[in-house]
Amino acid sequence: MLRFLTAGESHGPSIATILDGMPAGLAVSSAMIDRDLLRRQQGYGSGGRMKIERDHASVTGGIMAGRTTGAPISMTVENLDHAKWRDRDIEPMTIPRPGHADLTGAIKYGYRELRLSLERASARETTMRVAVGAICRAFLLEFGIVIGGYTVSVGDVAVAPSGLVPVADYLDRFARAEESDVRCYDPTTSELMRTKIRAIMESKDTLGGIIEVVALHVPPGLGSHVQWDRKLSSRIAGAIMSIHAMKGVELGDGFLETRLPGTSVQDELDNVLGDLVTRSNHAGGLEGGISNGQPITARAALKPIATTLNPLDSVDLATGHPVKTQYERSDFCQVPRAVPIVEAMLCFVLADALIEKLGGDSIDEMKPRFAALRRARLDDLHMDAVPWRFDYLT
Amino acid sequence: MLRFLTAGESHGPSIATILDGMPAGLAVSSAMIDRDLLRRQQGYGSGGRMKIERDHASVTGGIMAGRTTGAPISMTVENLDHAKWRDRDIEPMTIPRPGHADLTGAIKYGYRELRLSLERASARETTMRVAVGAICRAFLLEFGIVIGGYTVSVGDVAVAPSGLVPVADYLDRFARAEESDVRCYDPTTSELMRTKIRAIMESKDTLGGIIEVVALHVPPGLGSHVQWDRKLSSRIAGAIMSIHAMKGVELGDGFLETRLPGTSVQDELDNVLGDLVTRSNHAGGLEGGISNGQPITARAALKPIATTLNPLDSVDLATGHPVKTQYERSDFCQVPRAVPIVEAMLCFVLADALIEKLGGDSIDEMKPRFAALRRARLDDLHMDAVPWRFDYLT
Amino acid sequence: MLRFLTAGESHGPSIATILDGMPAGLAVSSAMIDRDLLRRQQGYGSGGRMKIERDHASVTGGIMAGRTTGAPISMTVENLDHAKWRDRDIEPMTIPRPGHADLTGAIKYGYRELRLSLERASARETTMRVAVGAICRAFLLEFGIVIGGYTVSVGDVAVAPSGLVPVADYLDRFARAEESDVRCYDPTTSELMRTKIRAIMESKDTLGGIIEVVALHVPPGLGSHVQWDRKLSSRIAGAIMSIHAMKGVELGDGFLETRLPGTSVQDELDNVLGDLVTRSNHAGGLEGGISNGQPITARAALKPIATTLNPLDSVDLATGHPVKTQYERSDFCQVPRAVPIVEAMLCFVLADALIEKLGGDSIDEMKPRFAALRRARLDDLHMDAVPWRFDYLT
Amino acid sequence: MLRFLTAGESHGPSIATILDGMPAGLAVSSAMIDRDLLRRQQGYGSGGRMKIERDHASVTGGIMAGRTTGAPISMTVENLDHAKWRDRDIEPMTIPRPGHADLTGAIKYGYRELRLSLERASARETTMRVAVGAICRAFLLEFGIVIGGYTVSVGDVAVAPSGLVPVADYLDRFARAEESDVRCYDPTTSELMRTKIRAIMESKDTLGGIIEVVALHVPPGLGSHVQWDRKLSSRIAGAIMSIHAMKGVELGDGFLETRLPGTSVQDELDNVLGDLVTRSNHAGGLEGGISNGQPITARAALKPIATTLNPLDSVDLATGHPVKTQYERSDFCQVPRAVPIVEAMLCFVLADALIEKLGGDSIDEMKPRFAALRRARLDDLHMDAVPWRFDYLT
Repeated sequence: MLRFLTAGESHGPSIATILDGMPAGLAVSSAMIDRDLLRRQQGYGSGGRMKIERDHASVTGGIMAGRTTGAPISMTVENLDHAKWRDRDIEPMTIPRPGHADLTGAIKYGYRELRLSLERASARETTMRVAVGAICRAFLLEFGIVIGGYTVSVGDVAVAPSGLVPVADYLDRFARAEESDVRCYDPTTSELMRTKIRAIMESKDTLGGIIEVVALHVPPGLGSHVQWDRKLSSRIAGAIMSIHAMKGVELGDGFLETRLPGTSVQDELDNVLGDLVTRSNHAGGLEGGISNGQPITARAALKPIATTLNPLDSVDLATGHPVKTQYERSDFCQVPRAVPIVEAMLCFVLADALIEKLGGDSIDEMKPRFAALRRARLDDLHMDAVPWRFDYLT
Repeated sequence: MLRFLTAGESHGPSIATILDGMPAGLAVSSAMIDRDLLRRQQGYGSGGRMKIERDHASVTGGIMAGRTTGAPISMTVENLDHAKWRDRDIEPMTIPRPGHADLTGAIKYGYRELRLSLERASARETTMRVAVGAICRAFLLEFGIVIGGYTVSVGDVAVAPSGLVPVADYLDRFARAEESDVRCYDPTTSELMRTKIRAIMESKDTLGGIIEVVALHVPPGLGSHVQWDRKLSSRIAGAIMSIHAMKGVELGDGFLETRLPGTSVQDELDNVLGDLVTRSNHAGGLEGGISNGQPITARAALKPIATTLNPLDSVDLATGHPVKTQYERSDFCQVPRAVPIVEAMLCFVLADALIEKLGGDSIDEMKPRFAALRRARLDDLHMDAVPWRFDYLT
Repeated sequence: MLRFLTAGESHGPSIATILDGMPAGLAVSSAMIDRDLLRRQQGYGSGGRMKIERDHASVTGGIMAGRTTGAPISMTVENLDHAKWRDRDIEPMTIPRPGHADLTGAIKYGYRELRLSLERASARETTMRVAVGAICRAFLLEFGIVIGGYTVSVGDVAVAPSGLVPVADYLDRFARAEESDVRCYDPTTSELMRTKIRAIMESKDTLGGIIEVVALHVPPGLGSHVQWDRKLSSRIAGAIMSIHAMKGVELGDGFLETRLPGTSVQDELDNVLGDLVTRSNHAGGLEGGISNGQPITARAALKPIATTLNPLDSVDLATGHPVKTQYERSDFCQVPRAVPIVEAMLCFVLADALIEKLGGDSIDEMKPRFAALRRARLDDLHMDAVPWRFDYLT
Repeated sequence: MLRFLTAGESHGPSIATILDGMPAGLAVSSAMIDRDLLRRQQGYGSGGRMKIERDHASVTGGIMAGRTTGAPISMTVENLDHAKWRDRDIEPMTIPRPGHADLTGAIKYGYRELRLSLERASARETTMRVAVGAICRAFLLEFGIVIGGYTVSVGDVAVAPSGLVPVADYLDRFARAEESDVRCYDPTTSELMRTKIRAIMESKDTLGGIIEVVALHVPPGLGSHVQWDRKLSSRIAGAIMSIHAMKGVELGDGFLETRLPGTSVQDELDNVLGDLVTRSNHAGGLEGGISNGQPITARAALKPIATTLNPLDSVDLATGHPVKTQYERSDFCQVPRAVPIVEAMLCFVLADALIEKLGGDSIDEMKPRFAALRRARLDDLHMDAVPWRFDYLT
């Protein structure tokens, strides 16, 4: 079982994570982790924070001589900003920002000022998810599994819908998205997104959007239909929905499938030289809550960031008076920067599911097991034609 | 902590569940449970099964003299159908139905025929979720929390979008939906949905749709922003996505929020006689992954059932030949029947979160705690105006 | 992950369990399960209950055509006694029996009479643990792992201490213990135990004792030292201590090791034709919380049953008056009957740990993985002699 | 739910922990934490390490302005020793020390040298458990619950057995134990223990012993009898057994109870002015796996440390040759230093169980709930005398 906890506040000394359950023998470098941290810091429509600090994950346990040891991996990222907050008086924040945890956190924990909510609820926390995700990504890559993602919409600007996307095209999308500062693979749409974001910045407002993440070369058989909390679909949806500002998740064709007849949304099967191949991938690689060997696709709906330069109506909790919200530095459009976060959560869930399938405690132990997995191939399936009886042991 | 496991196959002797963690002293009757089981069996567009068997949950542990005892609750529902399957030879099923767990389950578990997947992957399993949900519903009702749901679309037929819905209107929707055999609160749309379903039945096809579930009078402060897997939003999304044929979940305005500027999707606050009241509920009652006291709203996207009378292209795994799928009795449109299933999962998650917030082991112990919960009220919040310092213990 | 829940009361209609996570393809028969259930019902010093009912586990899910399917396994055992309790008025029980959950359960759950504690706290619940254990035992046996147990003391009558016990001798002990109605492998001690128990019965009192359980042929590498809750030692101790009337657990030489110098309690190593062999097994097969390939040995201390024919001083909670406890049918010495219960918990923990090590979803998938496990053999270890550096990624 | 993970190696840059689930509003100071860290570093029979480094826990998240915020608490302790290891070549360690995780860890994780096991398996890890325990201790103290511990034996030198110990005497024991460098409350026995340890040091050997930990003023009703993994007894035993070198755990009179008749080991009840008071505490405060309001007592058996100056027989895994073990700096008797570690695990389990009982998210929210808990008092129990019927909902 893979598990991780994160800790730390937005303006505290550092943020931290412990990732427990990663097998031994995985090669990991700072470059691997920091690359994803940097991706999280870059994107058109960001506010100023990523200019002040370039995140670096310091590994203090679980990785020695460049390889995981099987021991829990502890990582921290410093908040360079902390110095500015450390030794000064903090003015209590008493005006909740609609759409944030300011008020709900204060009600829950009994805070007498709202900054205590803000400090932990901040998306700064996702830095550690990205660090965890980078290690899970390296693990998955050992088995040829590739995770990528890109922006598919910002506000009402969206890429054109596509039919079945070949694996090579997904790889191409990943590469092209990285070249775009809105993380969209389509240059024309990228330009429209940039225009859209520029306009929203000028109107002192914010914009959300939709991110698609894709996992390639996932073997069939991860997750299970047998118990509600073991479905891979459920685990992916729960993990993605845990990201800040997330309001929706869909798998495969998602909501679109509710509008079409059953005969047009299932993925029909062909026998191609013994391989069982689907003609389409409406299901997004998941049938019965189990991976089917096709690319796993998920779309994540991020609402616009709740902190806007144009203030919103709120109430000063210290006085009861109606007031406007006060601005706290933030992004105008977080969607491009959120792509590696959504990828990270998908990496984590798939790494967990793969460890469950393969068992074992080291890459060396897992590799031959992976090679021997049953595939969607006639040769592997050995169907019987022998009648049988239920014969419950009643 | 509340937890449950289910067991049993579609045509086995019975299906079963154990629900662990329900406090003592909750009044539960067979009528309460069977009412939801009946709701799950009724709906326009259903196949034949609910005509043969009317489900009854037999409680064999954890409820004595009409009240829960705090001990785990075990329930079973008989499969009346079992008699027909018990003593006969089962012909191996070797043609996977696209969109089902037939093939993925067989690859995962090494089955040499596909019925073993089907038997457990069948939505028959949701019977026990509904039974569990009925008990959780009774528990929530002790604290005034009401959960309901309805169909908002079938295929491309959908109810008109609505702005802020008052609590009374939600109650009205729940009541009217129950009078409709498509479980839609709007009579005109209901008629269109019926027409749509009738057409799909005639074309031997299937249709999915969207269900909205709503929780009223949920106190603020359930769930937490402090750790990724404790967000109520994540737990709701994971639980709903675990339902059969589910491909999408959205909370509040969900995907719609990705298309609008930030200033129009947050819920601005007013002070109404000391109560902090939001003017809208775009957030669906969840801010920062924590309930905010507004109605919690979630929408669930069900794809059309994968079993269609019009067969699909598949492969006979015993021979490798291309063949058409064979029909297995099923619904044409499961959406109306799925409403109580989605409600059940929401009931479970909220009961779990409420137990976490209240602690305690009996209704009597929890009642005064509930009454003392901090509310979204100025009187409860006591905001300080005293400057403070971070002062980490570094 | 393997997990199970049990439910049901001592005089309710039945007791039940759901075991989730057992791989597919394991052959299981009623005979296997009922054999252990029968062992649990037999033993010198038992009260009358096992004469009235012979337990049979009815499997209603997860095992079809004699093999597990990977789906959760649901089992129930009827309480034949229930008929006598069902339709009669239950006189409230208001005198707590010292040493039972009577009073603590009532305080916790707010019961207004004590039978509600008794009904669930009864050791009748262990019937389902034994059923779960029987399936885990069958699973372990597929990999050659054998679990057995025996009584090592009853009151102050104990078997003689022994040094290193060869595997063949353990097998012999298991066999001979089954022939003894006190489940002790040594005939002379058995006779003394019987005499002791007879005397305690005559004095209307009860006696506890110590049970040793042993797991043979466990591969090295189960459990882990890397996180506190993953140590196999911790998991075994927690599982055994969860059994009714349990007051102590020791692993290997346990408390004895606290009295001896370090050089005499460690198990020194030899190279025997490439195998790394320990000369002794003081550690009970566990080093650093990880199995080392030697027999895993644990001893469980059961206190005497708290229900005694000679009454104890208590208080009538309805009146506040000092009174004597009332007798509720019970054993005089439960130790012989508890042997299969302790075995069952060890079987469960080891099956869980083995599934974690092997991963996979079917016996067929796991068998080759088991065969390839690294052993305590020079050939498997490939020690490097190359200097290296810590090189943390700080 | 309270949970924690630790990470870090013995000679790595630092060790770390994240504690998730601690309520908000708890006052915590560095002095509180470091006091327990210091206790862990002091004790007669220690090796040299505690002389080089005095541990200080640096809190980097979850505690602001001296109070917990409800957010996860992250702490690190530097390994001052690290500097000496960081930049030098590490000579591979190929001779496993019997009794350690050296070999089992290497088999499990596929290490090609043994230091990788040693680094994480080292009891250095317990530093973070003590830090976690210190915070849990502060939390418990808010509710008047006091945890303490002391050495009861070192080798064959043990304190005299005692009957019922009044709470005041336990407090006295705790205080006196702190004044003893072997952490034993009895001065005469302390002197004998010192002599014993001195002798073992001279003979270049090691010694273990037994520690007793006690929790005072624990309210009745923590833990539950209803499910095997919810018994407080099981959770305490599992947590204690997870400590390094632990081979046995007993609760209350433990193994002694196996030798006495039932009538003499149960704790008879009296009504003392409406309070239900036990005359003895053989049960160690736990009946039916639930706290009963009496002091919770547990004894932990630590084997002698496996690293001895007098070498043991082993095998050089690089050559296969029989060799002697090599000395790695270590304690001669770890028992006095282990007292705060065993206390820490008890603090953690009880804090977790109390949070479960009280629910809530802040000290302020929990305090009135604690005050209203049902006690072992006639006034609180309201026993009914009304006959009733089982009436299962079958």
